[in-house]
Amino acid sequence: MERSREQGTEASAAEIVVRIRSKDRVALAQAITLVESEKESHRDLASAIVRGCLESKGGGTLRIGISGPPGVGKSTFIEAFGIRLCDAGHQVAVLTVDPSSEISGGSILGDKTRMTNLARREAAFIRPSPSRGTLGGVTGKCQEVILLCESAGYDRILVETVGVGQSEVGVRAVVDFFLLLQLAGAGDAVQGIKKGIMEMADALVVTKADGENMQAAEFAAEGLRQIVPILRPYHRDWSPAVLECSAQTGRGMSEVLSVLESFRLCMTEGDRLDEKRQGQAVDWFRRIVKDEILRQVLGRPDFSQQMAMLEEAISNDSVSALDASEQLMALIEPGI
Amino acid sequence: MERSREQGTEASAAEIVVRIRSKDRVALAQAITLVESEKESHRDLASAIVRGCLESKGGGTLRIGISGPPGVGKSTFIEAFGIRLCDAGHQVAVLTVDPSSEISGGSILGDKTRMTNLARREAAFIRPSPSRGTLGGVTGKCQEVILLCESAGYDRILVETVGVGQSEVGVRAVVDFFLLLQLAGAGDAVQGIKKGIMEMADALVVTKADGENMQAAEFAAEGLRQIVPILRPYHRDWSPAVLECSAQTGRGMSEVLSVLESFRLCMTEGDRLDEKRQGQAVDWFRRIVKDEILRQVLGRPDFSQQMAMLEEAISNDSVSALDASEQLMALIEPGI
Repeated sequence: MERSREQGTEASAAEIVVRIRSKDRVALAQAITLVESEKESHRDLASAIVRGCLESKGGGTLRIGISGPPGVGKSTFIEAFGIRLCDAGHQVAVLTVDPSSEISGGSILGDKTRMTNLARREAAFIRPSPSRGTLGGVTGKCQEVILLCESAGYDRILVETVGVGQSEVGVRAVVDFFLLLQLAGAGDAVQGIKKGIMEMADALVVTKADGENMQAAEFAAEGLRQIVPILRPYHRDWSPAVLECSAQTGRGMSEVLSVLESFRLCMTEGDRLDEKRQGQAVDWFRRIVKDEILRQVLGRPDFSQQMAMLEEAISNDSVSALDASEQLMALIEPGI
Repeated sequence: MERSREQGTEASAAEIVVRIRSKDRVALAQAITLVESEKESHRDLASAIVRGCLESKGGGTLRIGISGPPGVGKSTFIEAFGIRLCDAGHQVAVLTVDPSSEISGGSILGDKTRMTNLARREAAFIRPSPSRGTLGGVTGKCQEVILLCESAGYDRILVETVGVGQSEVGVRAVVDFFLLLQLAGAGDAVQGIKKGIMEMADALVVTKADGENMQAAEFAAEGLRQIVPILRPYHRDWSPAVLECSAQTGRGMSEVLSVLESFRLCMTEGDRLDEKRQGQAVDWFRRIVKDEILRQVLGRPDFSQQMAMLEEAISNDSVSALDASEQLMALIEPGI
């Protein structure tokens, strides 16, 4: 019985993988949903699909993280950038974050554009991921989702992150190239940009370099050019580029593409991109192992029952969180 | 031997707890360093200190999370707010985030002020926490650090978070009151503010309501007042307040204090603050348990050796991350 169920899972996974590889968008979207699902019943199938896609992984892809503070125009930039990549013959997958509220989903005025022009392109696939309460999104199963998209033939994967914080660190670990969008402030070239975030960037792009904002954008870019040399670059032999652009007028957009191409050439020299991917695989492995350990221990019936009882006791103030955790851990053999 | 070492730990923990309770800042700072340390050798002492502080926890404290986008003037606001709280007779601990770069630490122009005026106050304790690579900071051992500060007699704990993202969710879980700072944009009242973040707030404060910016701030606050009623409040029976203030002119600062006091009264009615704290304790318990499980399993010599070997194999591309994780997990009995 167990065996036949396993065979069933393998058969349907194989079928889904074939459909993904033939660029069936519906199959890809469904597979991503399965992979991002937290339901125990989806786990085996999701894992079999990822395994199947891993076997068929192609080369020549580039994973690009895109971040920036709220209001910088991330969606607008990503759409314009994505269209340029399509025009240059690439197959573009965009993983956007949709930090949804539990009530109605979506954001208030935040994502004004829904990238409708990019969405119309045959060569583009746009996938908004809900943030599922962790606000910051995509990181959870990002590596898996990227793999699925690459299996479907998408060779430029754009991963959006929200805000400036922990999610950037998570995304930085799974992308090759990290692009930080910057807004020209009123004379504040680098107002509030933290050094740690800037040092993750392979390119810094000042947005909205158009109309009345043009001079401020140029000024901001100039300020960033002064700062970049004193930062430690994320990749040795690659000094972060500073550009200004306008998604509206198209100014600077082809320069962003050129920078990306230069980076790719720089990284493919001496197999550095392969090295990088192997490092990413090690990180991924560590994440899977941690998730698995927690799933197995927390899923043990005696453990979860005792845990629920102790949570009740903490809520009644009859035990402290510290004492409760000690009691619970006693259920596990020392050193497990 | 084991026993005497344990007794030694208990004795020094007890001594440190006594010093913390007598408001010895050096002891408090050292204890926080121990608690935030990731060194295995600090673990027992740190845990004994937290336990000691937990036993002596006093009531009447309020934990306040403060967030807002880069450039909103968080440090400036926190300093002005902290000074007002001191003037009102409170003992104020400020846990700030210092998203440091590994090179030199600190941020570029980000934290212009170091809260020197607040730091001079006898009733204030300021603790910058490095973000240790996770950028977003404080959340890791925030609960423990708050406890230590409360043990030392600080009754208003201000917890700063950086940016708008995952760190807010972490901090929201350990504070009573969450204050979201907002910047008046050029006509964009709520540019880029995500609904999910706004719904975590107990108060929305538009900063820099002074000089030329006054009207824009008032306009932004008015816009927020329109939006608040359609949001789901984080606390039932507490509708988020919208205020504008200027740390420079002092405008609106006492209103922020009044709102905080109203909130405290609202929450202490019917022991709701106690309920909240118990919920926080349950979250804390869950976090400790997860950390402990991972520490014990990953620390098992056979497990860590095998893990290192598999990481090597992944780096050589001789095994996939998925297969490696399966091999490693086989070391653990099914269901542990």
